[in-house]
Amino acid sequence: MRIGVFDSGVGGLTVLRALLHRIPAADYLYLGDTARLPYGAKSRDTVARYAASSAKFLVSEGAEYLVIACNTASALALDAIRDAVPVPVLGVVETGANAAEASSTTRDVLVIATAATVESHAYAAACAARQLRALEKACPLLVPLVEEGWIDHPVTAEVLRVYMSELLQQASEAALAPDTLVLGCTHYPLLRAQIERAVPPMLRVIDSAEVTAEQVAQTLNAGPPQPIRPRTRFFATDSVTKFRALGSRFLGQPIDGVDLVDLGG
Amino acid sequence: MRIGVFDSGVGGLTVLRALLHRIPAADYLYLGDTARLPYGAKSRDTVARYAASSAKFLVSEGAEYLVIACNTASALALDAIRDAVPVPVLGVVETGANAAEASSTTRDVLVIATAATVESHAYAAACAARQLRALEKACPLLVPLVEEGWIDHPVTAEVLRVYMSELLQQASEAALAPDTLVLGCTHYPLLRAQIERAVPPMLRVIDSAEVTAEQVAQTLNAGPPQPIRPRTRFFATDSVTKFRALGSRFLGQPIDGVDLVDLGG
Repeated sequence: MRIGVFDSGVGGLTVLRALLHRIPAADYLYLGDTARLPYGAKSRDTVARYAASSAKFLVSEGAEYLVIACNTASALALDAIRDAVPVPVLGVVETGANAAEASSTTRDVLVIATAATVESHAYAAACAARQLRALEKACPLLVPLVEEGWIDHPVTAEVLRVYMSELLQQASEAALAPDTLVLGCTHYPLLRAQIERAVPPMLRVIDSAEVTAEQVAQTLNAGPPQPIRPRTRFFATDSVTKFRALGSRFLGQPIDGVDLVDLGG
Repeated sequence: MRIGVFDSGVGGLTVLRALLHRIPAADYLYLGDTARLPYGAKSRDTVARYAASSAKFLVSEGAEYLVIACNTASALALDAIRDAVPVPVLGVVETGANAAEASSTTRDVLVIATAATVESHAYAAACAARQLRALEKACPLLVPLVEEGWIDHPVTAEVLRVYMSELLQQASEAALAPDTLVLGCTHYPLLRAQIERAVPPMLRVIDSAEVTAEQVAQTLNAGPPQPIRPRTRFFATDSVTKFRALGSRFLGQPIDGVDLVDLGG
């Protein structure tokens, strides 16, 4: 089985990392559309166009199953991607909503994400379809803080404190009793420990990377992980040097070769 | 005279704002290549391709003079832009370096900018050509803080304190005696007061927007400003709603109409 994993940048490598651990018997193709990132600030039409061309590229390289490890593309463009390619497509918004459904007993959940993901209200819609109420909050400073490497930095702790207290205040005003917090951006798993420290202990934090890997494994009947070394090819649409340097932090292991591809634009 | 002003996003509106004030008798065309921003994280080839197509668009709309109000494009793509269009082109890196030359008596200057601008060392090169030594520092958190609207926020003050103390420490280690700090990103003028509070008083802060407007006025022999209401057309390659909302803060006045244009990609 050859699994294609797509993100606008390196954030989706947190999903690939979880997949490599959970389904090591598969082959992987990873595409970061780094020339056109970030998708988070772009309109639905633009994101749909970029994501569809990226998905087509992965299928042309042999992907038999696609994981959209980009919350913005999953939120704004999943239908466009499914229309564009003839293989099964799983997006991180649905896997996050599935995990929230399994986690929540109060049926009230919180979601933090980029501005575009929040504006799309894709998580709220996916949660509503599962009889969950979701309160979404945009946290636009978290991605640049992660990319700056300020993971254990007091500024990041203070930014999280501000964002989380605003979110809990809004939840209280909306008379919600949340017990689950979904990390709706693939950069956020790197801040998981810091986020868990910034919220009350009764909030269970859902890491979209982990839950996505588990759901892909279930869909593919992958069985428990075997001790096999998976093969992965990496593609980026902009500087492969930058992709390698930044990406290794997200993947949790060195990235050797990255192929530069031109998708136009 | 019809002046075209180009930036990857809304940041260049700080330059347009200074131009409208300094040369109100001109007509203006402003293009924000918002579908493809930010240029700051992209490679030289990609930035050159995007900037050249944007410059050609402005000339096709009647621009007789181009101001590249985007530090990344000025740093990485000024030659590509000059090759692409038949009109005079002025970039904010050269106007910033000119102003630093006029300001500095110690001949040592500091520059803060995006990662791509710093990696290009365009300011160091422009300063060296003027017999100035320049120490450059990337400050990647400042743009998202400005776009989040956290201008007078304690987090921004702390981020500036960290960045500025690192920069002054590096200057000290390099045995520099800087007396001038160039704001090498068009978002930074919105943080000018906060930056001035974060640095020692002997550092003069150079605002690229103001000095660019003054140098355009000199080049065009514009004379002192007359009480005329200039006309401006705005173009963006992505969501015009977002451009209007965010841009008004940078321009310092409401933006009425924005035309959506498709430059491909």
